[in-house]
Amino acid sequence: MEDKVLLGHGSGGTMMKRIIDEVFFEAYAGDELRRGDDAAVLPGLAEGERLAFSTDSFVVSPHFFPGGDIGRLAICGTVNDIATSGARPLYLSCGFILEEGYPIEDLRRICASMAEAAREAGVALVTGDTKVVNRGHGDGVFINTSGVGVIPAGVDLGGAKCQPGDAVLVSGTLGDHGITIMSCRESLSFTADVKSDAAPLNHLIADVLAAAPDVRCFRDPTRGGLASTLNELADQSQVDFLVDEESIPVRDAVRGACDMLGYDPLQVANEGKMVCVVPAAQAEAALAAMHGSSYGADAAIIGEIAEARADRGPKVYIRNAFGGRRILDMLVGEQLPRIC
Amino acid sequence: MEDKVLLGHGSGGTMMKRIIDEVFFEAYAGDELRRGDDAAVLPGLAEGERLAFSTDSFVVSPHFFPGGDIGRLAICGTVNDIATSGARPLYLSCGFILEEGYPIEDLRRICASMAEAAREAGVALVTGDTKVVNRGHGDGVFINTSGVGVIPAGVDLGGAKCQPGDAVLVSGTLGDHGITIMSCRESLSFTADVKSDAAPLNHLIADVLAAAPDVRCFRDPTRGGLASTLNELADQSQVDFLVDEESIPVRDAVRGACDMLGYDPLQVANEGKMVCVVPAAQAEAALAAMHGSSYGADAAIIGEIAEARADRGPKVYIRNAFGGRRILDMLVGEQLPRIC
Repeated sequence: MEDKVLLGHGSGGTMMKRIIDEVFFEAYAGDELRRGDDAAVLPGLAEGERLAFSTDSFVVSPHFFPGGDIGRLAICGTVNDIATSGARPLYLSCGFILEEGYPIEDLRRICASMAEAAREAGVALVTGDTKVVNRGHGDGVFINTSGVGVIPAGVDLGGAKCQPGDAVLVSGTLGDHGITIMSCRESLSFTADVKSDAAPLNHLIADVLAAAPDVRCFRDPTRGGLASTLNELADQSQVDFLVDEESIPVRDAVRGACDMLGYDPLQVANEGKMVCVVPAAQAEAALAAMHGSSYGADAAIIGEIAEARADRGPKVYIRNAFGGRRILDMLVGEQLPRIC
Repeated sequence: MEDKVLLGHGSGGTMMKRIIDEVFFEAYAGDELRRGDDAAVLPGLAEGERLAFSTDSFVVSPHFFPGGDIGRLAICGTVNDIATSGARPLYLSCGFILEEGYPIEDLRRICASMAEAAREAGVALVTGDTKVVNRGHGDGVFINTSGVGVIPAGVDLGGAKCQPGDAVLVSGTLGDHGITIMSCRESLSFTADVKSDAAPLNHLIADVLAAAPDVRCFRDPTRGGLASTLNELADQSQVDFLVDEESIPVRDAVRGACDMLGYDPLQVANEGKMVCVVPAAQAEAALAAMHGSSYGADAAIIGEIAEARADRGPKVYIRNAFGGRRILDMLVGEQLPRIC
């Protein structure tokens, strides 16, 4: 095997067969991927089950960072998007866009990381594609993962289902991923103990659904952070969100970095956190389920939902310990490009 | 709306919402895409149905060419990959990787072309993702499409199912797409009347399956052309392919271009052609079905399958009009990068 990606690895010929066999199959192939047809063939569904289908491309820079790498992100991101629908994520596709000259050794590390994350999530990579672009027309490696999951009968979640009186939970500390990436790029020393939270949350979501069956919706606060996620949900459901600043978990190192750099941790990206809206009566049960999960130790109830004020439309308000209240807006423009 | 792609269009904030609403939704959104959750929710399957799932990324250069553009390719490529399994393609995802500075007007043209191809194929774009990379780290636009289809009960195709005695068909002329792209890049005048064959072939495949229910497999000869496709099938089924040079449809202009440039038209990419292997008794019925389809006017039976010789392993042989026979190999290295 060559030690760098060459244009021929995307040719459709013998060199492409080699990178597929020796890099991708070596890392993560099961029977369906190895079968080598152009479409994976997957089992049917049981009565009442529906499909969940999602896609995400990953262009994060750098490719490797504390707590993860582009491969782990690519698996966790799509697993989490599928899981937000209440589905069990089952099958992923993987499309690579490689730049000529990229080290094969780095690609192997990324693929090994994808395999490990897929095992943890319990999903199989069943179909894939590889393209190579000339040097200077890409950035080493971009990865698209798409995925399919099965929504059990009776589960029907959505961002438009939030109701006044519902409780709002978050599964852990905010801003870790974004600050980690920023810190890598800028070589900041004061964030030495911060690492990306990239994690598959499908098991956590399944536990919450079992404990709190009337969950309205899940959403992972990735680009744009909690602020964007809550504003999206407020808009979809036409309700107000009221969250308490004091109750929102943020690590000291992340808060310190944000203070120094002028970022709002609530607008910084996360890759292993889940926002959950649930009827107030099931909020404690949902919280206990999160606390029982390996990725939910710092979960908290952070606020509640109210009717939108007729004169202002749906908004997200954040309250501080002194009773003050301000509007939490969506990010405008770009804070930190290529975070995922 | 801005007239160029900015980093903020990938931010997760208000600018990203704007490009989604004003460019992508404007071109092709239906109810499921507009719902705005992270995963599309799709209906269940009937008893005995299975899922087909496929992915493809598109990095073709240039983005616009006679007969199509990167958007049309992105829809047709994934529709065709799904259809090769005998599935009805139904739902596609779309992931854009945009480069800062790319003209929004070009993006709109691409999206309009995707919408038109999706309508023709009868598929819906139900979920998507948008990333923006800094200037100099991409190449305007890369598109990943993934897709899901439904395989009817009783349909079970695959590249490993070819048997000695089977007939081999191709649905039309070979090499048109690759020569078109090459011609665009090099501004060759002698290929003025050649254009890309990019087309959705799911309806053609459905017609062939109805006429010839024992089809072994379909495969679209994209990168690496017919030569790679037949070698892949020979390898999967451990059989020999014997094809007749005279019977393989190639346009004169394509043949002329290949002669001048030293290409073999059988190794040049196609984006709207299908190879089909079928029991000999159903070959004429399959051919008639192709001829009846809008994309199959030049379809032909091009050869047959034989047992592999024990001393050589599975091979593809090409016979000329004088009785000569040579081995048709897979492409080695890269002939023409970024063809799709």
